[in-house]
Amino acid sequence: MANRLMFEKPLGMRDTLPFFYQQKRKAREAVSNKIESWGYQFLDTPMMEYLETVGEASAIEETQLFKLLDQQGHTLVLRPDLTSPIARVAASQLKEQGYPLRLSYDGPVFRAQQIEGGKPAQFEQVGVEYIGENSIYADAEVIALQIETLKAAGLNEFQLTVGHIGYVKGLLKEVFGDEEETQEEFLRYLYRKNYVGFRKALEQVELSGENKARMKQLLSLRGQKDVLATAEEITTNGACHRATRELKQLQNLLESYGVSEYVSFDLNLISHMSYYTGILFEGYAPHLGSLLCNGGRYDQLLPSFQSTASATGFAIRVDRLVEAMEQHADQVGPVLVMYEPHTFDQGLQVAQELRAEGEQVILQNKAYYEEGQNSYKQVIDLTEGGASVE
Amino acid sequence: MANRLMFEKPLGMRDTLPFFYQQKRKAREAVSNKIESWGYQFLDTPMMEYLETVGEASAIEETQLFKLLDQQGHTLVLRPDLTSPIARVAASQLKEQGYPLRLSYDGPVFRAQQIEGGKPAQFEQVGVEYIGENSIYADAEVIALQIETLKAAGLNEFQLTVGHIGYVKGLLKEVFGDEEETQEEFLRYLYRKNYVGFRKALEQVELSGENKARMKQLLSLRGQKDVLATAEEITTNGACHRATRELKQLQNLLESYGVSEYVSFDLNLISHMSYYTGILFEGYAPHLGSLLCNGGRYDQLLPSFQSTASATGFAIRVDRLVEAMEQHADQVGPVLVMYEPHTFDQGLQVAQELRAEGEQVILQNKAYYEEGQNSYKQVIDLTEGGASVE
Repeated sequence: MANRLMFEKPLGMRDTLPFFYQQKRKAREAVSNKIESWGYQFLDTPMMEYLETVGEASAIEETQLFKLLDQQGHTLVLRPDLTSPIARVAASQLKEQGYPLRLSYDGPVFRAQQIEGGKPAQFEQVGVEYIGENSIYADAEVIALQIETLKAAGLNEFQLTVGHIGYVKGLLKEVFGDEEETQEEFLRYLYRKNYVGFRKALEQVELSGENKARMKQLLSLRGQKDVLATAEEITTNGACHRATRELKQLQNLLESYGVSEYVSFDLNLISHMSYYTGILFEGYAPHLGSLLCNGGRYDQLLPSFQSTASATGFAIRVDRLVEAMEQHADQVGPVLVMYEPHTFDQGLQVAQELRAEGEQVILQNKAYYEEGQNSYKQVIDLTEGGASVE
Repeated sequence: MANRLMFEKPLGMRDTLPFFYQQKRKAREAVSNKIESWGYQFLDTPMMEYLETVGEASAIEETQLFKLLDQQGHTLVLRPDLTSPIARVAASQLKEQGYPLRLSYDGPVFRAQQIEGGKPAQFEQVGVEYIGENSIYADAEVIALQIETLKAAGLNEFQLTVGHIGYVKGLLKEVFGDEEETQEEFLRYLYRKNYVGFRKALEQVELSGENKARMKQLLSLRGQKDVLATAEEITTNGACHRATRELKQLQNLLESYGVSEYVSFDLNLISHMSYYTGILFEGYAPHLGSLLCNGGRYDQLLPSFQSTASATGFAIRVDRLVEAMEQHADQVGPVLVMYEPHTFDQGLQVAQELRAEGEQVILQNKAYYEEGQNSYKQVIDLTEGGASVE
């Protein structure tokens, strides 16, 4: 075989070389340990699912799905997220466990890329799903845990932005009444974070001065807890007031958890066009150009699997978490013990003793050793003319 | 959505529920820590590769490959093993590191199943590849490490069977001369462990009495190190004698490693029709009906990626390792702290203190709590009428 693809990988596919692998493993362990300490149970689901069940229940657009045919002629997808497979398990094998369920996962998901734009087509997510409790206490737990996991991974500077889909939809309905397409249009501008488009569309639409002013105010409803008071004032709508009341309760609970310094509010945050049904949030870190983590309450996924349970959860992008963390180039490398055939037993004894003390030790036949770019904590040379170098 | 597939998974796909997930994680951590203590570096490669490169270099039959088309029209495969992707990385991104390379991996591989016969189509392997040292010391290290990893996972009873492809091929060539098809036929009986077929074919083939006797003796060359002397006596062939000399050196090195009690020899062991080129081995545990782990020396994989390096390695099936381990039903469960709204702060404080002490603690709003099949280490009930139960 000798062809131009020899060392190539499919579009969006990446190798994880040893240094990055270690960083990722450290981050995943820290996050997983924190999640477990809050009583969440890890599980895993297969990489492949049926398109017509999990594939269609997922929140990912169909163009992003990797599809294949099985030998029975069913269309399979590589799982594009873990929330919908976990909803499938929660509604079947785990339904005897008693609600609420606190579940968690740590594994790869797949999103097909149309062009080589630097986006990975496979990446790992660690996340939780808190299923069967439609209370503000559940939302607060998930957000507090989200913050504690990032801290556990060693991240110090990050910010969670919290919104409420009920507020935006309530205000749009109050302003536009039955004009559902117009509401959808403004929702889409917010989803795409296209505020210029939002303002332009607002100029062109027929509205009372008061309503135009409220729509403009929506864009500025960002900041600390005082924006919740403003948000409440500009509307008399019941749905909006329910949303601000929930957000205020959330703020109080997050203060109890001692994590409110990491949280700000954004009443026009829309993370997904149809997925979330209540409080939702996104997490960002400085110098990271993209979303670190996100989550929120969704009530419409489990019904896909004949369950009426409400749920809330979060997902962290592991690759971005590692990118956001300060890189510690603290790799000291293993101890290298060099032997030649007549000193093998001696070398083995040294290696076994050091390994028993917790050291990483390479035991190496010198005849086959080639200098490379490796660094060693210590070199112990048991060959003719060799001298131990510390 | 309501269809008959709703809770189904594709053929051979499995969910890993919390208890089995924990068992697997423990086993993988023990094995990985041992591998790292011997100076091996973990890395990962994508789940998808090009069929024409890694797919064809792999030792897995094409009917077992999951294939899909990418948007550029290339055929992709879900990786059927990790040895060939790691050979790709070793021959490209890692080629500056200096040989030998000690690499390791821990991840899922995919093998399509034709029928629902209980075989998983996705399973996890942990393994090592020791690349660039064609010496008996390298073979011995890999076999000793294989044994140490199984011990580290808590497995006490297991056996490694070691053979040498050079011996079998040397003897067949000595007996059958240029009749390559006949050699292939007998090799295939051994590969399928079809000894009845082997004996029948032997009755029908024209051979001298001496050669028939040697072929029958081949089948009985199994046991401790004394079979190596017998194996040497029945042939004058240089290739066979090289093989028995290597196996004797291996035995001595494994005695130095202190692991020879786990090893026996089987001179007619053939794990794969074409993959291995020297010493090879298979690992079994009592009560486990299938292969636990296997490995050996292969010299023909890296040439697929324009490298002349020789390599040896092993792979462990994680699902079978867990099956072979004694199941400890020692799950004590988390602490459950129940609160109602006015005792939330108190409950949170208790939970935070216990978590800081290393406990797993669920903090639960009693209004949403449903009895299930869970067990708890302790229940602390901070609700009206509740009494802490230890």
